[in-house]
Amino acid sequence: MQKITLSYGDGGKLTYNLIENIFVKHFKNEYLEKLQDASLLKIGKEDICFTTDSYTVSPIFFPGGDIGKLSICGTINDLSVSGATPLFLSSSFIIEEGFDFETLEKIVISMANESKKENVKITTGDTKVVEKGKVDKIFINTGGIGIKDKRMKLGIERIKLGDLVIINGDIGLHGLSIITKREGIEFESSIKSDCSSLYPIVKEIFPFGEKIKFMRDPTRGGVAATLNEIVIKSDIGIKIYKKKIPISEEVNSLCEILGFDPLYIANEGKIIIIVDRKYGEKVVETMRKQQLGKKAEIIGEVTDKIKRKVLIETEIGVERVVEFQAGAQFPRIC
Amino acid sequence: MQKITLSYGDGGKLTYNLIENIFVKHFKNEYLEKLQDASLLKIGKEDICFTTDSYTVSPIFFPGGDIGKLSICGTINDLSVSGATPLFLSSSFIIEEGFDFETLEKIVISMANESKKENVKITTGDTKVVEKGKVDKIFINTGGIGIKDKRMKLGIERIKLGDLVIINGDIGLHGLSIITKREGIEFESSIKSDCSSLYPIVKEIFPFGEKIKFMRDPTRGGVAATLNEIVIKSDIGIKIYKKKIPISEEVNSLCEILGFDPLYIANEGKIIIIVDRKYGEKVVETMRKQQLGKKAEIIGEVTDKIKRKVLIETEIGVERVVEFQAGAQFPRIC
Repeated sequence: MQKITLSYGDGGKLTYNLIENIFVKHFKNEYLEKLQDASLLKIGKEDICFTTDSYTVSPIFFPGGDIGKLSICGTINDLSVSGATPLFLSSSFIIEEGFDFETLEKIVISMANESKKENVKITTGDTKVVEKGKVDKIFINTGGIGIKDKRMKLGIERIKLGDLVIINGDIGLHGLSIITKREGIEFESSIKSDCSSLYPIVKEIFPFGEKIKFMRDPTRGGVAATLNEIVIKSDIGIKIYKKKIPISEEVNSLCEILGFDPLYIANEGKIIIIVDRKYGEKVVETMRKQQLGKKAEIIGEVTDKIKRKVLIETEIGVERVVEFQAGAQFPRIC
Repeated sequence: MQKITLSYGDGGKLTYNLIENIFVKHFKNEYLEKLQDASLLKIGKEDICFTTDSYTVSPIFFPGGDIGKLSICGTINDLSVSGATPLFLSSSFIIEEGFDFETLEKIVISMANESKKENVKITTGDTKVVEKGKVDKIFINTGGIGIKDKRMKLGIERIKLGDLVIINGDIGLHGLSIITKREGIEFESSIKSDCSSLYPIVKEIFPFGEKIKFMRDPTRGGVAATLNEIVIKSDIGIKIYKKKIPISEEVNSLCEILGFDPLYIANEGKIIIIVDRKYGEKVVETMRKQQLGKKAEIIGEVTDKIKRKVLIETEIGVERVVEFQAGAQFPRIC
């Protein structure tokens, strides 16, 4: 009998297959076909975005954040990259018997602070407590509702040959902050999670309207998974340039030591934008004016040299395919 | 250091306190104050209801349902009792490493069937896989969006002296179906969970409009918790009559054997309605025409004889207080 392994949850090819072959297959409806971070719903005269995410990150406190902050940022980001202004959140807690009240309150305060900062309201919730050993400390689900910005017309099908691929900054920070904490080596590194709400930078992109073809936050599975999800559903390929990808010295060397490829490492404060070639520089300039976009770069372009694949050109000019999945890297980074 | 115990999740007084003293305190906003099953949001010109619930039921298959069906019905019901027509659901899975594909598909089909039956669409989702032993098999979160029926004006503050309390049928079935299955005595009883979507019966109540003061599904904590949640926030009391409460012989005798009070046992296909006294009989007649309301009864009334308390008159005419909580009954019934 086939079993669910950890790889089904790492955001790569197996996650994609599980979603397609079990969830989309049975829940079949017009909303699920696009497989976006948030679904776009017409309710009366309003275009509303709706999303959900469960957070099972371990450890629950890590350099740069905690499960509470992550649960708010992650859901705000899913709405933001769908071209929506986040308005309302739900929060649902599954807590292990024996969990500290004080720690719970710390997590809740972290959620409250992050949502207030972004002017988003937590309007509904749920609490379950399960027996000791039946859940690992605390899991949080947040759902989100946002109102679609009417200027935005996002869709993988709108991506064309020559379009540019932009990222707002350094990759690999979130995943590495979790791993260093988990392995007890966080004091030897200064790597902090990039866990942030992306709405402040995304809202500056909204005025570019239909020139923006696609946006996504490269979380689980990293930049590699996000770019592969784009090409797998289309007739194009994407080529990126290693030397253009913002990455810190420290992330680079830690990845070398640990044997990771930073392209597969989760980010929680990064956004990938695909834009009409003519507007690439303007979008980058706009992003660099924002705190979260100081290191924004054009990292690649849409190509017809290869279809349904992602290529990377290394520093020495060699091209290789960036596979969807490099095997299970690590579970529970979000 | 204060710890979260199982009682904080049983839907009684401690759950209520946890919500008030941690979640509502820090998330503070106008939407949370009413503490309803779903929050009412104004988005553009539309009145939208938004809700969330995490399901951790154990066992995941039980007489009359499974965690999948429960996760759809429960969220449809939260929207329905808030006076809304359920439209869209989210579904988020946390799956234990090693879980069977086949069992997952069975649960997903059960969700698909229940949502199709009620014409509700699952439009967005999430999947996490965690290591063996870090979650008990599978937990599911469903969020829901519905459109508020403009005729409905629900609110605890609208409840007045003399209003009647109605229930649509037999109590205690869901909780007992879980317990009998968990204890391995399900074959000695024919008790099946009442797990059902309440929308088909609730929509027949919508035409009564403002004559309906309050609706809620008495799930965790049972009828006792629901009625206590009403009186604790108001200036009134509620008196119910034991002999009027629909309850099967089998539930009664099983409760006696196991030492449970059926008033505290969870239901998943029951609704409590508080209605203007003059319309009580008409509402009951309307409900009895529906499959889910054949045993509908007026079980009590709003009284000023006692404030902020629920009274029950026993079969022999003795009155006693129905406390908010009878101590932890059992965890993970939903």
